[in-house]
Amino acid sequence: MTNLLTNPQDVNTNIPPSNSRERAKELVKTLQDKICQGLEEIDGKAKFQEDNWEREEGGGGRTRVISNGGVFEQGGVNFSEVWGDTLPPSILVQRPDAVNQGFYATGTSMVLHPKNPYVPTVHLNYRYFEAGSVWWFAGGADLTPYYPFAEDAIHFHKTLKQACDKHHPEYYPTFKHWCDEYFYLKHRQEARGIGGIFFDYQDNRGQLYAGSDHNGLANQYSQKVGTVSRTWEDLFAFAQSCGDAFLPSYLPIIERRNGMEYGEKERNFQLYRRGRYVEFNLVYDRGTIFGLQTNGRTESILMSLPPEVRWQYCYSPEVGSREAELTEVFLKPQDWANLGNN
Amino acid sequence: MTNLLTNPQDVNTNIPPSNSRERAKELVKTLQDKICQGLEEIDGKAKFQEDNWEREEGGGGRTRVISNGGVFEQGGVNFSEVWGDTLPPSILVQRPDAVNQGFYATGTSMVLHPKNPYVPTVHLNYRYFEAGSVWWFAGGADLTPYYPFAEDAIHFHKTLKQACDKHHPEYYPTFKHWCDEYFYLKHRQEARGIGGIFFDYQDNRGQLYAGSDHNGLANQYSQKVGTVSRTWEDLFAFAQSCGDAFLPSYLPIIERRNGMEYGEKERNFQLYRRGRYVEFNLVYDRGTIFGLQTNGRTESILMSLPPEVRWQYCYSPEVGSREAELTEVFLKPQDWANLGNN
Repeated sequence: MTNLLTNPQDVNTNIPPSNSRERAKELVKTLQDKICQGLEEIDGKAKFQEDNWEREEGGGGRTRVISNGGVFEQGGVNFSEVWGDTLPPSILVQRPDAVNQGFYATGTSMVLHPKNPYVPTVHLNYRYFEAGSVWWFAGGADLTPYYPFAEDAIHFHKTLKQACDKHHPEYYPTFKHWCDEYFYLKHRQEARGIGGIFFDYQDNRGQLYAGSDHNGLANQYSQKVGTVSRTWEDLFAFAQSCGDAFLPSYLPIIERRNGMEYGEKERNFQLYRRGRYVEFNLVYDRGTIFGLQTNGRTESILMSLPPEVRWQYCYSPEVGSREAELTEVFLKPQDWANLGNN
Repeated sequence: MTNLLTNPQDVNTNIPPSNSRERAKELVKTLQDKICQGLEEIDGKAKFQEDNWEREEGGGGRTRVISNGGVFEQGGVNFSEVWGDTLPPSILVQRPDAVNQGFYATGTSMVLHPKNPYVPTVHLNYRYFEAGSVWWFAGGADLTPYYPFAEDAIHFHKTLKQACDKHHPEYYPTFKHWCDEYFYLKHRQEARGIGGIFFDYQDNRGQLYAGSDHNGLANQYSQKVGTVSRTWEDLFAFAQSCGDAFLPSYLPIIERRNGMEYGEKERNFQLYRRGRYVEFNLVYDRGTIFGLQTNGRTESILMSLPPEVRWQYCYSPEVGSREAELTEVFLKPQDWANLGNN
């Protein structure tokens, strides 16, 4: 457990180990391996296809895609490691001390679109940055169900909470809130899913929270959160715990839901809801927009998009239906981890 | 035909008629009516459903949607008239003299997604703005085929060219070029379709061209285009000619293609290509992004999205296929109007 220090700006905590890049890279690359292995086992039918690619400006990646499986209609788990002369403006706004510094970034990102509408779509991303003397960890995981099962939402959040709680009691509530804040479709006034955890810019300087305020949650919350001093090792261990929590947070949900029978109605609703996923990723998601606008590998960036999608003008679910319950209850922030204690 | 004047900044041309807003509104509203009538006739099965809506900050609109028709799987024709205290920053960047001025805007926009993959998707938008002493006309129409038929591309462009040529010989080449420049997916290095015409900020000040340069066409072209003095009446008449050219530019293509038989392969390719339409509209389209970010009526804005869409990781059409011809030949700028003269 990290201690709260009186001086979180302690310069001694600012020194990453000499092999920080290698260790961070191994962390996210190994995570990709572990996740792909676990997913192939539960899928039981399809295998990941791997594409290795290089980035002209420096670095490259390993994209793995699974499709037409026993569980997964389509999914991708990407690893990348990139470097260059300067970070993009979209990041420098938040990290002005990284201006004019060469940078290094490595990460793993994943989106899974199951075939069965009762199995939720899930997203994960863990990444590490260095730019000059600045470094930080970022990432998270969030769940997007198509049908409302409180049991699944509670399990997902409790598993992530346990991983967070091993490191600091403020991590889960802070990063759960940040997740609700980030994965929000302003034009729909709707959350993307039931959330999870999301954190960015976690370094030795102790600011847990750096959210914006597009759904009105941030200001209210950021007042409440103090600073916490962490070393590189603390944050590395935290990122590792979060990454390792993914399979235990998601596989039991697949086991419970993948055998459930569904019809055209449920499939249609799933395809309709997937439209929201597309809207979020193309209109709001920082990583997607940044990647598309800066000559990233388009196919690796857009592997997050669902294989089949539907839009329907002015669709609204029947009053009192499970489809309505999803929007009215599950797509608003709920304290899932503590609901499970009642 | 408008004359080239030695002094295009002539202040006398800057005065719109006293009933300019009413006339512009009637122009685009009547255009909506004429288009809907023509489309219902050719569809033969479905009728437009109309939603009237009001905008809290001032104004409202009339959204019409057709679906599951004999031709149209889904399509929408929107009319709107809005006013307020100040134009959004995205427009003020191009029109600094409209800062701190109340504004009025009216327009008609349309997107049609036919069911048969041999019938192209089509988009049209004509609009008029006033802000203080500044006013301008904008709009255009462009075609997005799924299969390559030179005959259709030539017909579409020639019809628009004839409408433009009645008003000025530089209109068609300038606005055709601007269209190629605007409807471009940088992250795919691909045009959205075979283009058409696109113009913005057409006023009495004579600058025909105000494109940006995201695909490298703009700089090369903007050097070549001079200034042309037009009155409000000139531009009103031009917008009217363009709007009236829509049905003659598109209906003959439907007549030729809608009876053609197709299979699962063609349908799958259509759904895949529709993904590009979604990518363009959500990542690049000014009107869509502006609308979503500024509390527009989401369902009216996103009625442009296709009813069914597919994404497929690293899909590439077979070498030498019609699908490959689309991308390799039709999705690069071509001089369609003059090809038809050979």
